[in-house]
Amino acid sequence: MKVIVDLCVVPMGVGVSVSKYVALCEKILTEAGLKTRLHAYGTNIEGEYDQVFAAIRQCHEQVHAAGAPRISTTIRMGTRTDREQTMADKIQSVEDKLTK
Amino acid sequence: MKVIVDLCVVPMGVGVSVSKYVALCEKILTEAGLKTRLHAYGTNIEGEYDQVFAAIRQCHEQVHAAGAPRISTTIRMGTRTDREQTMADKIQSVEDKLTK
Amino acid sequence: MKVIVDLCVVPMGVGVSVSKYVALCEKILTEAGLKTRLHAYGTNIEGEYDQVFAAIRQCHEQVHAAGAPRISTTIRMGTRTDREQTMADKIQSVEDKLTK
Amino acid sequence: MKVIVDLCVVPMGVGVSVSKYVALCEKILTEAGLKTRLHAYGTNIEGEYDQVFAAIRQCHEQVHAAGAPRISTTIRMGTRTDREQTMADKIQSVEDKLTK
Repeated sequence: MKVIVDLCVVPMGVGVSVSKYVALCEKILTEAGLKTRLHAYGTNIEGEYDQVFAAIRQCHEQVHAAGAPRISTTIRMGTRTDREQTMADKIQSVEDKLTK
Repeated sequence: MKVIVDLCVVPMGVGVSVSKYVALCEKILTEAGLKTRLHAYGTNIEGEYDQVFAAIRQCHEQVHAAGAPRISTTIRMGTRTDREQTMADKIQSVEDKLTK
Repeated sequence: MKVIVDLCVVPMGVGVSVSKYVALCEKILTEAGLKTRLHAYGTNIEGEYDQVFAAIRQCHEQVHAAGAPRISTTIRMGTRTDREQTMADKIQSVEDKLTK
Repeated sequence: MKVIVDLCVVPMGVGVSVSKYVALCEKILTEAGLKTRLHAYGTNIEGEYDQVFAAIRQCHEQVHAAGAPRISTTIRMGTRTDREQTMADKIQSVEDKLTK
């Protein structure tokens, strides 16, 4: 099952600067062979369900191992059976309507 | 890895009434042996990461099979290494502060 | 515009125990005259849009004032024009399907 | 109060193609003078709390007016009092760690 996911990992108990933990997650996702795109409040991910959620599990394990005692993550996940759609398709689809 | 999750599955392309799909997910989660508690905008789930996300995968697969061509789901997921905490503990912890 | 909201406020930079900040938000929401129901990963809220988001603004302001330098909040918000629906209706609607 | 928000509006009861409604929201946000950036699963928004949530209210009202009888939206919202931070700063902060 192909999924498009938006992931936002919030480490707690490590002060206000959390970008090093977010960068760690970016590396894990990329090394897992997933297509990703970072934005200002999360990361878009495209891939197979099992592969994506194995990588997200790794993010939590490694962010804990890097010193964060608590993590609160939010995930949006889209699946569809009517047609294939990539992250780029989704953006293009909105932008087409904007220029009309 | 133990997780506390809050899951909200939104089927698209099937009209405005989606409670039968939510009920289907409740059954899947319960039959997977997970502890759950339904609220007005999602379901709290407590369990092992792999077990929880295998069940969420099943929710998507079966909601598609039941006729929804598209699904947009949101998930909150909490993990912590400092101590064990159940869903009931989390609520109790807030309620203790409210009565003070 | 009537809304059903699910609110989860995550204070950052104040350690791992955040229940006192969540309790503070509960008090703000209740004193604002909103109908609320606490669950293990957030709070259901029912009310008028302007009233709900004035109260959520107060939550952020007072959680900052109570010592949290950073807050990452997630909100689900539902509106519908086809019919009126309360938080209790939403739960009942799913439970009706479960017992069938 | 300055906020960085990530908004994802999901119209229900209008079939599987919702990009025209997302484009409508983009226009509303831009015309409200807000800084926005579209991604594959939502839109980053930067602005003052009251201005941002007045625009989000408009999104719901106009998406309903355009034909969607039900909407389920998710919002992430960040505020901080320790320092000013833009959407671009947040991305830069992570990318700095990635190149090290």
